[in-house]
Amino acid sequence: MGTWDKRGDMVVHEVEPYNAEPPPGALLDQITPLDTFYGRNHGPIPRIDAASWRLRVDGLVDRPLELSMDELQRRFPERTVVATLQCAGNRRADLMRFRDIPGQEPWGPGATSTACWSGVGLANVLAEAGLQAQAAHIAFTGADVSQEAYPPQPFGASIPAAKATSSEVLLAWAMNDQALPIAHGAPLRVVVPGWIGARSVKWLQRITAQAEPTDNYFQTAYSVLPPEADPHKTEPGDGITLGPITLHCAILRPDEGAQLPAGPTDVTGFAFAGDDRTVARVDVSGDGGSTWIHADLDAPENPWTWQHWRATLTLPAGETELVARAWDSTAAVQPESPATVWNPKGYANNSWARLNVTCHP
Amino acid sequence: MGTWDKRGDMVVHEVEPYNAEPPPGALLDQITPLDTFYGRNHGPIPRIDAASWRLRVDGLVDRPLELSMDELQRRFPERTVVATLQCAGNRRADLMRFRDIPGQEPWGPGATSTACWSGVGLANVLAEAGLQAQAAHIAFTGADVSQEAYPPQPFGASIPAAKATSSEVLLAWAMNDQALPIAHGAPLRVVVPGWIGARSVKWLQRITAQAEPTDNYFQTAYSVLPPEADPHKTEPGDGITLGPITLHCAILRPDEGAQLPAGPTDVTGFAFAGDDRTVARVDVSGDGGSTWIHADLDAPENPWTWQHWRATLTLPAGETELVARAWDSTAAVQPESPATVWNPKGYANNSWARLNVTCHP
Repeated sequence: MGTWDKRGDMVVHEVEPYNAEPPPGALLDQITPLDTFYGRNHGPIPRIDAASWRLRVDGLVDRPLELSMDELQRRFPERTVVATLQCAGNRRADLMRFRDIPGQEPWGPGATSTACWSGVGLANVLAEAGLQAQAAHIAFTGADVSQEAYPPQPFGASIPAAKATSSEVLLAWAMNDQALPIAHGAPLRVVVPGWIGARSVKWLQRITAQAEPTDNYFQTAYSVLPPEADPHKTEPGDGITLGPITLHCAILRPDEGAQLPAGPTDVTGFAFAGDDRTVARVDVSGDGGSTWIHADLDAPENPWTWQHWRATLTLPAGETELVARAWDSTAAVQPESPATVWNPKGYANNSWARLNVTCHP
Repeated sequence: MGTWDKRGDMVVHEVEPYNAEPPPGALLDQITPLDTFYGRNHGPIPRIDAASWRLRVDGLVDRPLELSMDELQRRFPERTVVATLQCAGNRRADLMRFRDIPGQEPWGPGATSTACWSGVGLANVLAEAGLQAQAAHIAFTGADVSQEAYPPQPFGASIPAAKATSSEVLLAWAMNDQALPIAHGAPLRVVVPGWIGARSVKWLQRITAQAEPTDNYFQTAYSVLPPEADPHKTEPGDGITLGPITLHCAILRPDEGAQLPAGPTDVTGFAFAGDDRTVARVDVSGDGGSTWIHADLDAPENPWTWQHWRATLTLPAGETELVARAWDSTAAVQPESPATVWNPKGYANNSWARLNVTCHP
């Protein structure tokens, strides 16, 4: 690694990729500090020369664009959105305990973080380019080339035009009022609130309006396959290609395996409903799901962010399973068991959150 | 019943209400015939004199409107949408088997039907009236006065302006290419595809743009309350007020309690994902959920209609539980058990479909 390369007119220097989960404490903050924001990358991180960087907008548009960062910042109004990003593989470790998933990251509940993103509305840029009537999907291509892909190719994704033209979707150059870090996609990344992190393409180079979803490897790679499928021998259409995040919650305190005094115990966590839904209720159990109480749940800051919750359970002496489940604003509830949602690539584990603790008298 | 009355300038004659579920066979058709389309009413059905009827559009609009049927039909383009309507109480009977729900209709899986609706786009009418910026909700008031309400009042509902201005929401005067029957809301009803039937207000008289949801009794009456709540002593905010339909499926063939020969057995049903989601996969089990096969699932006609499915299971001799569960286009799956979703008014039962049959060798 570490070679300088030219891609088109753009100079790129690659650094090692990293995949990192925040420490559990970092998830307790409404806004995640930059140095603990989760990382998930599929290839070496490109270090891009901002002066030579250009964003191309092409495909089914009336006026193809090529924009420098300066043009992007001058020609469009700046917009800020607080949004949670979450990897589709979040909480895969809980699926792995049910049945192994070789070759995938064993994420705990922390492949998720929240930032305050600033940039321009993708809708404004697409309006300037003039979307044609047949442009049903908007594809994004990054500068990071992944050897995980078959064949190796830049990371990419697409989202339907209806989502792409919604006001919450940004092309972001800042995160928590600081310049976007290289690890998170500098100079520019897409932020698709409420959708799996893989659609928020980093190191963005190109936006293409097209009639069909992208054929980029990572578009269908992020699919929930039927349990019996061989993930190395799948065709597009074999699985459910992921877009909006599925309803989800996690217990952040106490820790898994904690030794606690019996009696009143504070339990806290977050819940997140994807797309434009919010979390309406969280139930918490201190006896493996036999009885439940309602957690005190934060009101949603907006539909795009997680909501923290807390409850006080009175725990008996001995080993106890804590369980949490969330309900969204349509009254949908999470499914009970990892056995139901297990899938060969370990995506979208939205089964009830479970955690074991031992209480001494 | 049967008195003639004047409400404003409008002459109304009330006939008996009815609540009716289609026979199971009627649910096998993609479009439900008018004479078997489900009925759910909360008061006497008003027989409205179409000549004197007017639609009022008021509240936070620049230009309040008062439209006769002739004006509505002449001033706006006609639009047709195929959409499934479903009562929030569908499949309540399965919840009642788990724990009784006094005073509510024991609906089977048939409080749902699909029609081809024709009328004008609500968005067009609202655009003509000129929605003001603070108009976040659109409220509907019917001509049917319900004694079930506290205090007695006309049936009403509201939906957020974002949904109300979506192209699929209609003010409909025709159903399956025939004049809208009195029982289904003539002369004009709202059709809110993907949302619980209670928001598709019949015998529509008035549309009001407002900053908050309606305070009509039936708006919060259609809520999922916590299991321990007393449904007679609730305040707004105690439950999850229902809007989009929750993901749902039903087994239509064989019948509950059927006596069948052991061996290959055709199983068929429908599934429906609310809001703008579609059904992506249906799993069917012939052994109570131990093993599953994937059903052959119809592609969605549009996001607003049910999708039929079929599978062939090889059933052993003896009593067997058939189970079906659906996955939506975001990879969300139905929850397993009525115990999880039971609520005091029996709404939104989206637990797995279950049915017992006995096979002879």
